[in-house]
Amino acid sequence: MMAVHGGQLRLSTRGNTDVVDITDGVAAVLRTSGVELGTVVAFVTGSTAALTTMEYELGGVADLQTLLAELTPADRAWEHNERNHDTNAHAHLRAAVIGPSESIPVVGGRLALGTWQQIVLVDFDDRPRERVVTVHVHS
Amino acid sequence: MMAVHGGQLRLSTRGNTDVVDITDGVAAVLRTSGVELGTVVAFVTGSTAALTTMEYELGGVADLQTLLAELTPADRAWEHNERNHDTNAHAHLRAAVIGPSESIPVVGGRLALGTWQQIVLVDFDDRPRERVVTVHVHS
Amino acid sequence: MMAVHGGQLRLSTRGNTDVVDITDGVAAVLRTSGVELGTVVAFVTGSTAALTTMEYELGGVADLQTLLAELTPADRAWEHNERNHDTNAHAHLRAAVIGPSESIPVVGGRLALGTWQQIVLVDFDDRPRERVVTVHVHS
Repeated sequence: MMAVHGGQLRLSTRGNTDVVDITDGVAAVLRTSGVELGTVVAFVTGSTAALTTMEYELGGVADLQTLLAELTPADRAWEHNERNHDTNAHAHLRAAVIGPSESIPVVGGRLALGTWQQIVLVDFDDRPRERVVTVHVHS
Repeated sequence: MMAVHGGQLRLSTRGNTDVVDITDGVAAVLRTSGVELGTVVAFVTGSTAALTTMEYELGGVADLQTLLAELTPADRAWEHNERNHDTNAHAHLRAAVIGPSESIPVVGGRLALGTWQQIVLVDFDDRPRERVVTVHVHS
Repeated sequence: MMAVHGGQLRLSTRGNTDVVDITDGVAAVLRTSGVELGTVVAFVTGSTAALTTMEYELGGVADLQTLLAELTPADRAWEHNERNHDTNAHAHLRAAVIGPSESIPVVGGRLALGTWQQIVLVDFDDRPRERVVTVHVHS
């Protein structure tokens, strides 16, 4: 018996709070595992991206981008940018608040998501990035 | 040996950032599992509710509702509402930022919570809802 | 076979949104477990502290403190403080939004963190505190 089944998703993002629906990729790892009852852990590597769930829909995506742009403006004089001659302090802040991991139960071989609830990667960095999401299925 | 014990909580909320203490329900699932050392994963299905921990106390609940009403006002012209003829864009935003899952270690058969730390479901939708929280105990 | 290996970190913080890098402590528990493929769950006990990941760097730490001080000022007339003759309502709010737990996959015996991604405890309470972080390694 294997208690954990591991997988990885590799994807390209456009950065700038790009919201990417990764539900199908997570579900594919789950399917490969054959697990009926357990928990999927998804985690994005990197300090300028985050994972959460939301209804993946153009309006909600735009609202999230608007809200975060107002609360953490990219063009403000952040310390991170001044100390490191960098430009993505706002990305670090957004990622830290939302967080890199979610845990989704598996019941009857399916993720316990709602019909309008998708797992999304949000890439806050201010340029396109290659991202790795690690997906572990525990049973 | 069963490595995962699954349970579900079903509850009615009043919506409108109703904060519901689900600690006793989670603890009941844990007790049924008989697990002494492990981790409890709790997850709420749906894109307009979230899970976190807080001191469940009238003042803190009111403060959280005040803060979120200011940061994400219900009556603002959000894109989600305009595109979908909907009214709960603010609920989607709050749920995405706080997130649907928490993982709480079990030590000596008890949740590793503080005395003034409860597991809460926060329902941001703008109407009463029936909610399902899935609780998985891994050992 | 032991499916879960448990450990605890005990640490002193300065409070007031002190950000403490706990990556080495979490990695030490992982090393003791000997787990090659699995997931580490880290959880802070208490309702005025939170866990997340970020680049642990002076600028980013200062930015996070600035942002949270603006969004949830300590000196505002919060209900929690008025009802309980308390002074740390802002700490409760910050902890509830950021959350007490993270789950980090283990691949090849290492945490799936990025080079500039550390696991941090953020202590929002308005005084120095002794904190316990529970670290469970599931395999």
